[in-house]
Amino acid sequence: MGAKIVIVGGVAAGPKAACRVKRLMQDAEVTIIDQDTLFSYGGCGIPYYVSGDVSDEAELRSTSFHMVRNEDFFEDAKGVLVKSGTRATAINRQNKTVKVQNVASGAEEDIPYDTLMIATGSRPFVLPIPGADLDGVFTISDLHKAIEIKDRIAKGKVGKAVVIGGGAIGLEMAEAFKDLWGVETSVVEFMPQVLPRIVDSPMASMLTKHMRDNDVDIFLGEGATEIVGENGKVTGLRTAKRTLEADIVIMAAGVRPRTEIAVEAGLQTSPMGAIVVNERMQTSDPSIYAAGDCIEVMHLVSGKKFYAPLGSLANKEGRVAGDNMAGIPSKFKGAVGSFIMKAFDVCIGATGLSLEVALAEGFDADVALTAPSDRAHFFPTESIVCFQMVFDRRTRKVLGLQGFGPMGDGISARIDAAAAYISMGATIDDFGTLEMAYAPPFSAAIDSINAIAYVADNLCDGRLHKTTLESFLVWMDDFSTQPDWIALDIRHPIEAGPCVEKFGVDKWCAIPYNEIRKRFKELPLDKKLIILCDAGTRSFEIQSFLKSVGVDQTLVLSGGFNMLRRMGIDWYPGK
Amino acid sequence: MGAKIVIVGGVAAGPKAACRVKRLMQDAEVTIIDQDTLFSYGGCGIPYYVSGDVSDEAELRSTSFHMVRNEDFFEDAKGVLVKSGTRATAINRQNKTVKVQNVASGAEEDIPYDTLMIATGSRPFVLPIPGADLDGVFTISDLHKAIEIKDRIAKGKVGKAVVIGGGAIGLEMAEAFKDLWGVETSVVEFMPQVLPRIVDSPMASMLTKHMRDNDVDIFLGEGATEIVGENGKVTGLRTAKRTLEADIVIMAAGVRPRTEIAVEAGLQTSPMGAIVVNERMQTSDPSIYAAGDCIEVMHLVSGKKFYAPLGSLANKEGRVAGDNMAGIPSKFKGAVGSFIMKAFDVCIGATGLSLEVALAEGFDADVALTAPSDRAHFFPTESIVCFQMVFDRRTRKVLGLQGFGPMGDGISARIDAAAAYISMGATIDDFGTLEMAYAPPFSAAIDSINAIAYVADNLCDGRLHKTTLESFLVWMDDFSTQPDWIALDIRHPIEAGPCVEKFGVDKWCAIPYNEIRKRFKELPLDKKLIILCDAGTRSFEIQSFLKSVGVDQTLVLSGGFNMLRRMGIDWYPGK
Repeated sequence: MGAKIVIVGGVAAGPKAACRVKRLMQDAEVTIIDQDTLFSYGGCGIPYYVSGDVSDEAELRSTSFHMVRNEDFFEDAKGVLVKSGTRATAINRQNKTVKVQNVASGAEEDIPYDTLMIATGSRPFVLPIPGADLDGVFTISDLHKAIEIKDRIAKGKVGKAVVIGGGAIGLEMAEAFKDLWGVETSVVEFMPQVLPRIVDSPMASMLTKHMRDNDVDIFLGEGATEIVGENGKVTGLRTAKRTLEADIVIMAAGVRPRTEIAVEAGLQTSPMGAIVVNERMQTSDPSIYAAGDCIEVMHLVSGKKFYAPLGSLANKEGRVAGDNMAGIPSKFKGAVGSFIMKAFDVCIGATGLSLEVALAEGFDADVALTAPSDRAHFFPTESIVCFQMVFDRRTRKVLGLQGFGPMGDGISARIDAAAAYISMGATIDDFGTLEMAYAPPFSAAIDSINAIAYVADNLCDGRLHKTTLESFLVWMDDFSTQPDWIALDIRHPIEAGPCVEKFGVDKWCAIPYNEIRKRFKELPLDKKLIILCDAGTRSFEIQSFLKSVGVDQTLVLSGGFNMLRRMGIDWYPGK
Repeated sequence: MGAKIVIVGGVAAGPKAACRVKRLMQDAEVTIIDQDTLFSYGGCGIPYYVSGDVSDEAELRSTSFHMVRNEDFFEDAKGVLVKSGTRATAINRQNKTVKVQNVASGAEEDIPYDTLMIATGSRPFVLPIPGADLDGVFTISDLHKAIEIKDRIAKGKVGKAVVIGGGAIGLEMAEAFKDLWGVETSVVEFMPQVLPRIVDSPMASMLTKHMRDNDVDIFLGEGATEIVGENGKVTGLRTAKRTLEADIVIMAAGVRPRTEIAVEAGLQTSPMGAIVVNERMQTSDPSIYAAGDCIEVMHLVSGKKFYAPLGSLANKEGRVAGDNMAGIPSKFKGAVGSFIMKAFDVCIGATGLSLEVALAEGFDADVALTAPSDRAHFFPTESIVCFQMVFDRRTRKVLGLQGFGPMGDGISARIDAAAAYISMGATIDDFGTLEMAYAPPFSAAIDSINAIAYVADNLCDGRLHKTTLESFLVWMDDFSTQPDWIALDIRHPIEAGPCVEKFGVDKWCAIPYNEIRKRFKELPLDKKLIILCDAGTRSFEIQSFLKSVGVDQTLVLSGGFNMLRRMGIDWYPGK
């Protein structure tokens, strides 16, 4: 018998590493230890199981060829032993053993290893507020919880749901409740936007509007202060501003690495408690590997370690760990934090750094926005997509890309291409010439990812002078905040006219795009012109022209009305 | 008045460069010369105009904000003068003038320039066969031709159509005829596959089957020898093997650069006649730029110049030319040849080099195939996608990626990410850890692009021993070609059983995937086992196991039945 390889944790990284190392070293004795009886499942599928898109939890534990990944499957098909219902309680690094305990019987044993891997994953963060232990309060921590949540809904016990946390899991759960079960659903998010740190506020605003349009209540900037109940059962959630009735409360306030066993064994961990590994997924003890939600990885943009608990990364890290445990020196260089999420009829995606994070990391960061067609504008399935590019002014490197558009794989295509490019250090100029596959049913001759790079290029070179959506909305809310501003609306008179009528000619002037060259002398030159169009592209053209005729007090609203409308402006005439 | 900039050619690269340079230098006098009266149109949209997806040709000439890009538009909105219906006939480099002729009146003039740009595009290759000048024989060279083709169909004059050429334009035109107008349509392709040099034969075979399933006849390896007619009108097309009746014949046999004016002016051109430019789109005369279908560009994988007549590249090149004409030193480094095409309910895409081209270019190239799920296999919209990765064994660099799958943007997403990555020199290992944005509605935890990289990794390291789809099909056609082969079918007995019954136990043995570890001693060890499953993944696992027990005469069929079925095998039991 060959090497003894013991893997603690059997959800994603663990099984992937186990199967890989076994394939590479068939004589190895590979054992997975998991405290749960349900393991090797697609945790990211839980919201779709709860919604009913996935009918049976066993599907989340099945292979693509429809075999359930249970103990027998691992033994028969993979040659890997799974000790389920077994908790690893301690590592003895000197003796190279893991102490385990059978969860049901309490029986203990020491399992010897030559190589150990820790894939203990994460646990949901439980808010330290009163009522967190009431019946009906759930975290999304494992399949058992998911089964119980769905069971309660299916039995009609859930009329009202409150989700704490406007991150991806919280929003996916909210959609699951609302879309397929018609549960009255609210989301409470402590930060002033959903998806904090993942996307910036313009993108988050568009998502929030779409969720609200689909009857999910979203309360931003409101922390949950207490979960209230009666007779031990949850009845509602309190914030500083309101009490929301609830038959169920989902706590989706993020996850933390589950690393007690590593800490106690003296392995190096990060300040937040994640296991530190090198590119070969080796911990500070060369006989012990780690991968998945319990580790931190290198961010390929910031060059700093970060915590990225994602099933897709866990699988990739697991394969690299498996290689290295078998002596193949594969590397996991790091991640760029790619993200995508469905929300009813839209999707939102991101990769790299958000503006907020980039600024915090010390980059000379700025942001470009645009909202062009996602494919040839004459093709029937064309839609508007909204993109934001974060770039570094000093190096011209692209730091991140965020996209919002109709449900489908179109946003994915741009985010994925950007992830590949960003991980290789691509600049704005690289993005400008990135060769997206083109045919009218799929893309535009100038793809949206090229278009956003053009905006970034013009910004970076100081040719484009912009205002932000945020500043513009502040002004629209109260014209006195920028008394010398006036909107220059260059859209078709049918579109611009009602705005002129509503806001008056001293705040809103309108000259169509194709008439400016002849009529620019009509412009009020004592004011700063905020140039407005649908996507921002024509506005930049007009800015360039106006500058050449001496009108240089202008700002472009990048993203234009296409983004304003999706953010849910309430001042639009005839709204 | 500033610099005089004259641009010859007004379809894609020309207008893009004109508008860009004008924005950057508002005082420049920018003139576009085009021999046609219809210009600045989306030529790639012609098949969709003919099909009726795009109802009016003016849509192909319109902006996304619905203004027709005619002479007035360019003058009023862009400040660019368009001289349409005007042919440039000669360049006088000494005097810096272009001789032009009004097509209608024949009047000539010399237009002075400080900077000239040649964007004369391409012209369709007209086969030197009898009958090419008959009424009803068309090339897809301009909008007038497209309008006339659609007019004939709409008037019911076209019952039968023959397309010469199985490239992208030919196939798109075939779909347009068949799908929306119900025209009996045939495609005749001289090479033994459709999309020659763009994709390799397994991908081409799947596309061919899908087109045939949609009642488009495709004749491969048949050159058109004569177009036949009566009274000056086309009635059919002859090949060496047959005569096809036709009311219309579309000649889509590729395009050639239209560069007479450049050649006559003594500018450097390539052996095939394309204009040679540097990264700044400058020709051998520093005052003359060129971009679009009339130039050759650097292939970022082969490192050699190649001819890539694509509207999307023309626009990017045009912008770079515009920058440089205005003194901004932008670069167009080159292209990777990204390609995508819709065909009825599927799409096919590619980027980088095909295996055929890679081998011809001297790479130590090999190819990996796989056919996994395009997203989480438990998600309702999941489909099988087929990918082929071309890689260099020596450097482990990925040279190309090809994909075939259901219509949508899922194939695009992988091709685009690969294009970005390949252009930066990414290796198999980079692709293995490429971080595609993951959520179950969009992708799998191990994305298909990671999965194909894993196959390439195992192949490159000599762990995976494969046969090709082509070899396997030869053997299935005639077992005597490989008398010592036997299929080892590891699928479920319900799937494998009928094959065993049909081909006999001496040619087809079946042991399910999860029983091999227990039952491998039943295998016929005097034969070479061709291991078969749906995607090829399980087959590799079994190969690895069998090697460890001394059974090393095995070959894996990568891509497996998922690809075989899509290639239209006719021997499948119960077919």
